[in-house]
Amino acid sequence: MSFEPLKGVRVLDLTSVVVGPVCTWRLGQYGAEIVKVESPEGDLMRGLGGGSPTGQHSGAYLHLNRGKRNICLDLKKPGAREVMERLVASADVIVANMRPQALERLGLDAASIRARHPEKVYCLITGYGTDGPYAGQPTYDSVVQGATGMAGLTLQRDGTPTYVPMLICDHVAGEIAAGAILAAIVERKVNGKGCSIEVPMFETMAAFVLQEHLAQASFDPPVGPPGDLRLLSPYNKPVQTADGWISFTVNTDPQVRAFLKVTGRHDLLEDSRFNSVAARARYVKEWFEVRGAPLTHKTTAEWFELLRAADIAVQPCHTLDTLPHDRHLEAVGLISREQHPTEGTTAAIRSTIRFDSDYPSRRSPSQPRGWETQSVLREAGYAPGEIEALMTDGAALATKASAQ
Amino acid sequence: MSFEPLKGVRVLDLTSVVVGPVCTWRLGQYGAEIVKVESPEGDLMRGLGGGSPTGQHSGAYLHLNRGKRNICLDLKKPGAREVMERLVASADVIVANMRPQALERLGLDAASIRARHPEKVYCLITGYGTDGPYAGQPTYDSVVQGATGMAGLTLQRDGTPTYVPMLICDHVAGEIAAGAILAAIVERKVNGKGCSIEVPMFETMAAFVLQEHLAQASFDPPVGPPGDLRLLSPYNKPVQTADGWISFTVNTDPQVRAFLKVTGRHDLLEDSRFNSVAARARYVKEWFEVRGAPLTHKTTAEWFELLRAADIAVQPCHTLDTLPHDRHLEAVGLISREQHPTEGTTAAIRSTIRFDSDYPSRRSPSQPRGWETQSVLREAGYAPGEIEALMTDGAALATKASAQ
Repeated sequence: MSFEPLKGVRVLDLTSVVVGPVCTWRLGQYGAEIVKVESPEGDLMRGLGGGSPTGQHSGAYLHLNRGKRNICLDLKKPGAREVMERLVASADVIVANMRPQALERLGLDAASIRARHPEKVYCLITGYGTDGPYAGQPTYDSVVQGATGMAGLTLQRDGTPTYVPMLICDHVAGEIAAGAILAAIVERKVNGKGCSIEVPMFETMAAFVLQEHLAQASFDPPVGPPGDLRLLSPYNKPVQTADGWISFTVNTDPQVRAFLKVTGRHDLLEDSRFNSVAARARYVKEWFEVRGAPLTHKTTAEWFELLRAADIAVQPCHTLDTLPHDRHLEAVGLISREQHPTEGTTAAIRSTIRFDSDYPSRRSPSQPRGWETQSVLREAGYAPGEIEALMTDGAALATKASAQ
Repeated sequence: MSFEPLKGVRVLDLTSVVVGPVCTWRLGQYGAEIVKVESPEGDLMRGLGGGSPTGQHSGAYLHLNRGKRNICLDLKKPGAREVMERLVASADVIVANMRPQALERLGLDAASIRARHPEKVYCLITGYGTDGPYAGQPTYDSVVQGATGMAGLTLQRDGTPTYVPMLICDHVAGEIAAGAILAAIVERKVNGKGCSIEVPMFETMAAFVLQEHLAQASFDPPVGPPGDLRLLSPYNKPVQTADGWISFTVNTDPQVRAFLKVTGRHDLLEDSRFNSVAARARYVKEWFEVRGAPLTHKTTAEWFELLRAADIAVQPCHTLDTLPHDRHLEAVGLISREQHPTEGTTAAIRSTIRFDSDYPSRRSPSQPRGWETQSVLREAGYAPGEIEALMTDGAALATKASAQ
């Protein structure tokens, strides 16, 4: 039986690009009905995330917008504003990641909406908290990576700053925002109370970095410089074998002893720099040099056998070409094929969390812009003639081949 | 008024290191009562995450274990098993990140517990899904980074694989697990039903990577290689100025035009490779070369002024030394000082999410191992003599100066 705790919860999704779509995608995984409002210009991520057969459903768009009904509205038209009024009234949760000033102009900010509907859960995902001096500044993932010190971590490690080659701040903040909304839904289910939530990406990801890396500077006086020195060691990296790269970790004393034996470093077994967690923390630089030394005298397969026999966690370094064919991922069916309304056969990535042994249903594929404009309007109480008028006026737009 | 939707929800926390502690820390932020059971050997992260005045509260331990009551039990002793029975019975949610076989040996796996207590929410955070061939293998963050292709992303970009210098897979999977538990709590509040949740880190983070990077290979036939080529461009990195590094992003057509003007690249304004989102997606390599070119003829402060005037998102690349002193973070009070029971004055990082304009309360500092052993036992119904006996037997342990 499918796990759908949010069944019957209606989410009005005013988000685009990544952080907001991740958040509402996750809520959809738990059974919420998501109505995504898209502008006539369309969500930037449709094209920005790479190619697709029609050019309108980049992979990122495809995967982050599953399970959402799409209505296209031109909010510059008064008719569309009225539609929004009805959609807001029928929603339980409203999620937005526009800049606060744009939302205020449209009357779609938390204060305006909750003045009329105090029982709504409203979540604003924003670049910078509205209570600080950067409030209202535009932001993007890479800017947040720079501002939160993520890029500075590789400056420290490698001598030059680089980004994590993912939309990591968007993606993580979106997941955290989904959790915050779920918490507010608990409150609403129990006490009937609405809530205005604000998730500032900068603060959220700065806290995320500092939880791990404030480290020795967490104390007053500091016991050392900030930074988890294990993670910032240039030797903390995948290790080259005769025919590839492997990732492994040895943390506990028994793992370390087994590792030293299996790699032929019997000379270090009694070395007082390496024979306890505390000693290795003190000699972290030297220890990571030992741990990160190339292992090119045996193949990946040979190291797998030796390290796993010693109960050491080890895996290959997958590339994007090999990852989808990993035998565990294939066995558990992470990726399946489905028919998309406009993009032909596409990959569908399912939720990875099991509830009572079942995975949540995959939900419907991502939709073309305006795919359900008509059906959403109809459910909002518009008569066929009114829908026609909204579309003639350009207030509502539908794709040619849209679902009726 | 504090936002505490999980007030009255009791979480029995059988986790250690990072992924589980992140999860239960987040639930604590929303008001849950967290009882953390620690073994006599102690949570590895107490020492592993770096130094502290006593050596027992590394920064990472300190920040990820706020708001948890700590009881120390030796589960090898029958007396401790009985204590666990009572703690399980009084909990609403049980969270574990031990290996499945270890939990089964202790009778603390989902099946054993929910056979007796079907109404409990049980969450197992595990390395690999128990329905696939890697089930039960040990794992760690860096191993997951290798296995999920994260390290492979930098192999593709830079020619050598590196890790994100954070415990990114642990940290993200912990946040996602907290969301899954919140979803299950919604279900329990509404229908009274318990649930067994399984969050496999490998699948969860593989899906996380693939949502962004399956890209062109999401289609059958593929429209190109996998990978978001913008993110994998070696030119997609912070840009050097005369006196530092800055991070900025230009995505929309107006931003791109403004950027070309402000950086003196008027020659490219009408270039058909760069004048639309679709064109820049096609010429992503060339575009990122333009965008990532050094800007060393002006200072960071000068670029800030010019780029911000053009409404382009830009920030400095903070380091771990400068980040805590960022003027926005200081203004919003992300970090404050508090007295820790054993570590003197320490930094406290607050929750970054605002609910009705308030941040959730900071909750209590992380506790020494066994800090509340006695009070938790007392609340579980043990008489003073029984507590004494458990401690004499070594089944329960308390720190010398523990809270009574």
